[in-house]
Amino acid sequence: MGIKFKVLKESTETNARLGLLETPHGIVETPIFMPVGTKATVKTMTPEEVKALGAQIILSNTYHLYLRPGHKLIEEAGGLHEFMNWHGPILTDSGGFQVFSLGDLRKITEEGVEFRSHIDGSKHFISPEKSIEIQNSLGSDIMMAFDECTHYPATYEYAKESMKRTTRWAKRCKNFHKDWERQGLFGIIQGGMYKDLRRQSVQDIVSMDFSGYAIGGLSVGEPKELMYEMLEFTTPLLPKDKPRYLMGVGTPDYLFEAVINGIDMADCVLPTRIARNGTVITSRGKLTIRNAKYSRDFSKLDPECDCYTCKNYTRAYIRHLFNVNEILGPRLTTIHNLYFLIKLMENIRKAIKEDRLLEYREEFYKKYGYTD
Amino acid sequence: MGIKFKVLKESTETNARLGLLETPHGIVETPIFMPVGTKATVKTMTPEEVKALGAQIILSNTYHLYLRPGHKLIEEAGGLHEFMNWHGPILTDSGGFQVFSLGDLRKITEEGVEFRSHIDGSKHFISPEKSIEIQNSLGSDIMMAFDECTHYPATYEYAKESMKRTTRWAKRCKNFHKDWERQGLFGIIQGGMYKDLRRQSVQDIVSMDFSGYAIGGLSVGEPKELMYEMLEFTTPLLPKDKPRYLMGVGTPDYLFEAVINGIDMADCVLPTRIARNGTVITSRGKLTIRNAKYSRDFSKLDPECDCYTCKNYTRAYIRHLFNVNEILGPRLTTIHNLYFLIKLMENIRKAIKEDRLLEYREEFYKKYGYTD
Repeated sequence: MGIKFKVLKESTETNARLGLLETPHGIVETPIFMPVGTKATVKTMTPEEVKALGAQIILSNTYHLYLRPGHKLIEEAGGLHEFMNWHGPILTDSGGFQVFSLGDLRKITEEGVEFRSHIDGSKHFISPEKSIEIQNSLGSDIMMAFDECTHYPATYEYAKESMKRTTRWAKRCKNFHKDWERQGLFGIIQGGMYKDLRRQSVQDIVSMDFSGYAIGGLSVGEPKELMYEMLEFTTPLLPKDKPRYLMGVGTPDYLFEAVINGIDMADCVLPTRIARNGTVITSRGKLTIRNAKYSRDFSKLDPECDCYTCKNYTRAYIRHLFNVNEILGPRLTTIHNLYFLIKLMENIRKAIKEDRLLEYREEFYKKYGYTD
Repeated sequence: MGIKFKVLKESTETNARLGLLETPHGIVETPIFMPVGTKATVKTMTPEEVKALGAQIILSNTYHLYLRPGHKLIEEAGGLHEFMNWHGPILTDSGGFQVFSLGDLRKITEEGVEFRSHIDGSKHFISPEKSIEIQNSLGSDIMMAFDECTHYPATYEYAKESMKRTTRWAKRCKNFHKDWERQGLFGIIQGGMYKDLRRQSVQDIVSMDFSGYAIGGLSVGEPKELMYEMLEFTTPLLPKDKPRYLMGVGTPDYLFEAVINGIDMADCVLPTRIARNGTVITSRGKLTIRNAKYSRDFSKLDPECDCYTCKNYTRAYIRHLFNVNEILGPRLTTIHNLYFLIKLMENIRKAIKEDRLLEYREEFYKKYGYTD
C-alpha cells in the first residue's frame, strides 16, 4: 500500500493542518513528533515503553546502522522492525547528515561521499544508490533521499551548487528504489538561507513526485528569526496533498512554529539527549534535576504531567538517581521528556481541530515562559 | 505484626524446607532469592519490572543510602518503600560489610567503626546503635544487626575476638531497636572458618531471640569445599522456626547447596553485575553476549526461557546493543539473569514440595554443566 496521506482539516487561522499518514506498519496522526532511535533503540527505552507514551512512529539512522551492526545483518534478522522489536512505522534518514558532519573525514564527489568511520577509521563510500540499498535492507516504512545538508553559513554559490547536487542525487535515489508498496521515499528540499534557491529546490524535487517532502538544512546554527523566515517561505510552496517533514526540530517553540506553517512531521534527539543529562522539559519550562535545590523536593517533575515518571517518583528521588549514576535516572527523565513532546503534539492536534491553535500556544507560553 | 515465619514442609531427603515469611509489606515464599537494590534501585530496573519477574523481596544497602542521599532525607520522603516506589518487603543490611570492606579507610573500636566515605573522604562513625537508627529511618521490613564480617583467612584468635564483638554489637542493636511490629531484626552468625566459634556464635546470637538469623562471613574468598563444610555445619544449629538467611550468595550451585542445607533466603549482586557486563546465565551455562560468534545468532539468550528478553529479542540484537553501548542492553540482560534465578528458586520450591529436590538438581546440572 505504500505511503498515503490525507489532510483531515486545515486550520482557518494558520497554515496548520490535521492529517493521517498511512504506512505499511500503521497509521500516524499528524502533526506528529517522532522519537529518535539512532542505533535501533530509542535510548534507554523498550519499544513497549515508547508505544505506551503515545509515540506513533520512530526514526532510525542509516549511517549508524550501516556501520554497526551492518544493514545486511539487519536484513538477515528480518528487517529493522523485527530486529529491534518495534512493529510500528519507522522512518530512516539517508545517512547524508551524519556523513557530512564528519568534516575532514569525508570527501564529496558527484558520485557520492567517501568517508572514514568515526569508530575505527575504516573507509566507506555512500552514494545515493547505496543509501537506498541500505534503507531497503533496513525495510523502513519511509526512506529519505540522500542529500547534502548545506552548512550555515554558506555562500550563495556553494548553497546553489549543493542544492543542485541534492536534486541530482534525489533523482538517482528515486530511480534506484523499486518497491514503493513496501517503502515510501521522501525528497528533501535544500537551498541554504536563500529563498530563490529554496523555491528552485521545491520545484525540482516536487516535480519528481515523492511520497512526501522534507525541509532540510534548517536549525543548523542560523539565528532563530532566519530559520522561521525560511520555514515560513518554504513550507507553503510544498504540495498540500503530501506529508511535510521538518528535520531535526524538537523544542516546543520550534514545533509550534513548524506546525503553524504547515509542517506535519518533526524529529529531534534533543529531548532524549538532554533527558540523559538530567534536563527535564516541564509545563513551567526546563529544569535541571541535578540541582541541589531539588534534593528534598518531594513533588513531581511537572505538576501537570501524568506520565509514568510523574505518577510514581519525586524530584528528590530522580535527583538521587542522577547523583549516584543509576540508569533508572535517565530512563525516568527520557520517559518524561518524550511524553511531554508527544502530549504537546496531541494537544496541538486537538487545538487545530477546535480552531484554537494560536490561543493554545498563548496558554502554553504563559506557563512555559517565552524563551527557550 | 512484625516478622512471622511458618515452615510449610520439610524435605524428607535433605534439610531443605518450604516456608512463608510474613513481613509488614507482604508475604514471601521461601526459599527465596532477593535481588539487590543497593542505592534504592535495582540497577537498570523499575520496581514494576522487578515485581513482574516474580521478585517478592528486595535488599537495599544501609551504607550507600546513609551516604547518599542520607537516611534522614529518605525518612522525610516517607521511608525507603515510598522513596523508591517499591511497596513489597525490603531487607536492609547493616552497613557493616561495606564499612569493613573499606580497608585502610576504617578503624574498628569497641564502640563502632570510624571510616572515611569512599566518595569524598568525609569522616563518619557507625555504631550498632547508629546502624539501627539509620535502618529505622529507612523503614525496611527486615533489618540486620551491625556485625563484623570476618575476613578470610583469619587466625583463630582474630576470628574469636571478632565473633565476640559481633555478639556484643548484636545485643546493643537489639536493645536499641524499639518498634518490632514495624521492623524485624535479624542476628548474624560469624566465627570465620572455625566450627567451635560458629557453634558459640549460634548459641550466643540465638539466645537473644531475633526475628531471624543470617550466616555471615561465608563466600568471602575461601575454597568452595570449605564454604560448603561451614554451611553444612552451621545451618542445622539454627532454630527451625525462624528464617535463615545466607548472605551474599547467588550462583546456581551455591543456591542449591544453601537450600539443601536448610537456608531460606539468599541475595547477591553477582547476577545483576555480570548482566551489566554482558554475561548471561542460561539453562546451558553462562554466555558472554559480546562475543563475536553471537553477532548473527538470531536465537534467544536461553532456549528454555520465557522472560521478557527471551520472548522478544535475539542474541544478535542484544550483542549489538552492548556493542554500541546502549542502555537497553544491560536492561535486557539484567531482566534475564534475575528472572533466571527467581525462576530457579521457584522450581526449587516446587521440587521440595514434590520431594524431588536432589533429582531436580541433577536434571539442572545435566544441562547447565557441573562447573560454574
